[in-house]
Amino acid sequence: MAERAIGIFDSGVGGLTVLKALREVLPAERLYYLGDTARVPYGTKSSGTVLRYAQEAAGFLVRHRVKMLVVACNTASAVAIEAVEQRFNLPVIGVIEPGARRAAAVTRNGRVGVIGTEGTVRSGAYSRAIRALDERIEVFAAPCPLFVPLVEEGWGEHEVASLVAREYLAPLIDRGIDTLVLGCTHYPLLKATLQRVLGANVTLVDSATETAQLVASLLGKRLVLRRGEACAPRYFVTDEPTRFKRVGGAFVGVELGDVTQVDLGRAHG
Amino acid sequence: MAERAIGIFDSGVGGLTVLKALREVLPAERLYYLGDTARVPYGTKSSGTVLRYAQEAAGFLVRHRVKMLVVACNTASAVAIEAVEQRFNLPVIGVIEPGARRAAAVTRNGRVGVIGTEGTVRSGAYSRAIRALDERIEVFAAPCPLFVPLVEEGWGEHEVASLVAREYLAPLIDRGIDTLVLGCTHYPLLKATLQRVLGANVTLVDSATETAQLVASLLGKRLVLRRGEACAPRYFVTDEPTRFKRVGGAFVGVELGDVTQVDLGRAHG
Repeated sequence: MAERAIGIFDSGVGGLTVLKALREVLPAERLYYLGDTARVPYGTKSSGTVLRYAQEAAGFLVRHRVKMLVVACNTASAVAIEAVEQRFNLPVIGVIEPGARRAAAVTRNGRVGVIGTEGTVRSGAYSRAIRALDERIEVFAAPCPLFVPLVEEGWGEHEVASLVAREYLAPLIDRGIDTLVLGCTHYPLLKATLQRVLGANVTLVDSATETAQLVASLLGKRLVLRRGEACAPRYFVTDEPTRFKRVGGAFVGVELGDVTQVDLGRAHG
Repeated sequence: MAERAIGIFDSGVGGLTVLKALREVLPAERLYYLGDTARVPYGTKSSGTVLRYAQEAAGFLVRHRVKMLVVACNTASAVAIEAVEQRFNLPVIGVIEPGARRAAAVTRNGRVGVIGTEGTVRSGAYSRAIRALDERIEVFAAPCPLFVPLVEEGWGEHEVASLVAREYLAPLIDRGIDTLVLGCTHYPLLKATLQRVLGANVTLVDSATETAQLVASLLGKRLVLRRGEACAPRYFVTDEPTRFKRVGGAFVGVELGDVTQVDLGRAHG
């Protein structure tokens, strides 16, 4: 069991921030990453459609005999964790619970902001998860649909990103938040811009690093950590790999090696 | 034959600018509009994937016995017109040829700019179409990936849109273009911003209105124009209709009535 890979999936390149964090914490683990790039993004789509896509992505990785699943996409985590767990009967970790735990732990004034896609914010998943830990915490969520395209354009540090961030964050700043959850796997690439707009007194919570810690702890408890030498991740995508390689390289910080195009529909049918 | 509907398809809401132009020119025609909202956008995806999606969308409308097809999406027009025409054997009009004709007719200095999605620009389809009409014309194309999300956010007239437009258009202004083709069906909602950044001496070419004229002329020649009273369009979408209705309303200027969710994969399988 320990030799098996960890399966990670996302709608596209965003989940690579989670993959990167996993590699730092668990360098010996084999990682299979699936990006559903033929249907990206999930964040603007209905929960019914995202649930169907998440089941197909999970099914693909389960057929590749992974030992656990990481849903490295906030939108899919918000709507599909329980359904995926029930259907495939293996451990499934999403990015929302770890981010929520960290936010509840670090807030001093009990006012937490959450930013994410339309789908993530509409689901209310962060608010529920944070308030389940401490119901006195007030959660203020704001959808930020332009952040993903800005990051994919490579404009995370551009003047435009600052202007957009000031607009999106103004209502959260008005509420006096002292903690902001980056509720989308693209947003770590906006950290510097967001911190500048928010000021140094607001703590940013990055779900990617929190999720990696939780995965390590879970595998450790189950005694299925892999020993041995580091090995390169395998990447699967549903569209041709060209754009994934180009845009994804910036997320991982190195060139992506082995990327294979797969057809989830056909494999499933 | 005249009673049959015109089938229009796009990846999402963008093609509604073409539908709107068609309703103005041909108010008596029945219109079936299909937005592939479960897989939107096409503009960042590979030509192979876009071709497959376009074939599925066209197949759906053909099964609804339309008399002709309008590919109201630049990215799909750039890669799929000929394949769709060959496979389904009915008249197919895309948005690129009409826009190219207009651009070739109005340029005075022979320097034409084209803006569009990554897929449209990468295809080189506008450049080929314009230079096939007049090979002395120089065509300068620029991908503008942030324009679609800006329009869908309702920020077409926002300060951010001006800043982004100045950045994207700078290389085209440097080339001395006197004509700019709006090579994406979302871009008519940016007209005021683009004209302000470019100045009054640059002519904007809107493929939507050119395409509507060409459809009217084609149906007139084939004597299959519908007579009678205006009737409301029917809308089909592949994701749940909520977001399509909300964002699409701004494109047509009125609330969208009858919107039905359909499954292209299943209908096809």
